[in-house]
Amino acid sequence: MNGTPFHAVVLTLFPEMFPGPLGASLAGKALHDKVWSLETVDIRGFASDKHKTVDDSPFGGGAGMVMRADVLDAAITASRAPGTPLIYLTPRGRILDQARARELAAGKGVTLLCGRYEGVDQRLLEEQKAEEVSLGDFILSGGEAAAIALLDAVVRLLPGVVGKTASLEDESFETGLLEYPHYTRPDVWKGREVPEVLRSGHHAKVAAWRKAQAEEITRMRRPDLWARYAETKQKKE
Amino acid sequence: MNGTPFHAVVLTLFPEMFPGPLGASLAGKALHDKVWSLETVDIRGFASDKHKTVDDSPFGGGAGMVMRADVLDAAITASRAPGTPLIYLTPRGRILDQARARELAAGKGVTLLCGRYEGVDQRLLEEQKAEEVSLGDFILSGGEAAAIALLDAVVRLLPGVVGKTASLEDESFETGLLEYPHYTRPDVWKGREVPEVLRSGHHAKVAAWRKAQAEEITRMRRPDLWARYAETKQKKE
Repeated sequence: MNGTPFHAVVLTLFPEMFPGPLGASLAGKALHDKVWSLETVDIRGFASDKHKTVDDSPFGGGAGMVMRADVLDAAITASRAPGTPLIYLTPRGRILDQARARELAAGKGVTLLCGRYEGVDQRLLEEQKAEEVSLGDFILSGGEAAAIALLDAVVRLLPGVVGKTASLEDESFETGLLEYPHYTRPDVWKGREVPEVLRSGHHAKVAAWRKAQAEEITRMRRPDLWARYAETKQKKE
Repeated sequence: MNGTPFHAVVLTLFPEMFPGPLGASLAGKALHDKVWSLETVDIRGFASDKHKTVDDSPFGGGAGMVMRADVLDAAITASRAPGTPLIYLTPRGRILDQARARELAAGKGVTLLCGRYEGVDQRLLEEQKAEEVSLGDFILSGGEAAAIALLDAVVRLLPGVVGKTASLEDESFETGLLEYPHYTRPDVWKGREVPEVLRSGHHAKVAAWRKAQAEEITRMRRPDLWARYAETKQKKE
């Protein structure tokens, strides 16, 4: 690797969750090879009272606790990587997609704020101009599992992490389509045969079959992606 | 807890990634308290040759490797929890949402298949009638980070895991809206005040303000959710 590695800072109340799964396999090897670096910051270390309080009851009442703006602000100010976006992981955010993962991978790094309990004080998000990002329309017990998924998606896009560039090009979303089905040996398994065309050795026919399969599965499963793809295709023609 | 705990089986090539973040905080406490149980299965243990081969080149050519149907079938057959859905985590799947997380939490458990490399042989998915589930429109280095997020979302919905039922009711998606903003002490921070109404002690006004905020943020950020919410609201009226 040349240059400065991609730098990720994670602010959390559960530093023991990191690197977690990011310490093994592809992301773990890239971490070991210094393609990226990971700094985990314990938010509790920035509490100013002797009880190390990081949260308090919500104004207006209701169940749960809210993470304090002053504590989070101190943690962010002390540890944010210069020139990197601050992302707060929350179901209220813009939904993560492959385009945003690619943008992040092209940058110098990212600072991730993991919320717990009911969330964080709104004023902190405004003061720090945090980008709010959601993994999807489901609720996690905290931002940590989302931070791990986001970093996994970004790290594999860093130069040199995935062996061959080709295996990034064909996959879901890079073409605007879901990926075609895969087959490997044995060629007959439980009476199920690998489609004839894939065994033909005819490259153009294989490519045409795969494209048709990718289009069909996208049309069936994801009308939203299909509509966007069809529109782009029409413009090109 | 009464009855049999929710049972999760995870099939993976990287068993060392589990429980990972699921071993700490809310999910970790619930695991310790036997509200749920987690069995991690090393797929490689089901390879039949001396090299413990789990993958092979794709028919039709292309970069990367495909996980073999016969090896995965043996692993699933040996370890699937009876009466639980088999979910294959893949960007080609149906996108996970809170409704599916709730359905899973109401069941006996779940068996999760984590793919790596280019994916798994299509015939395995057909033979095992796997449900394909996606975390969102981005690519992970494998299904493991997705499995962790899915289990985190499901486990917190199991009875007794989140302290007060109330803190589940108000949150994003349970009402069809993104959640309203939160505020806690101090009441003035860096010149930013907590909205007056939240300090009024007037419960009906607080509730009305929160609903209006939730509606506004949903309308601005998520026109798709907003359209669905508006439609449901209209039907009710």
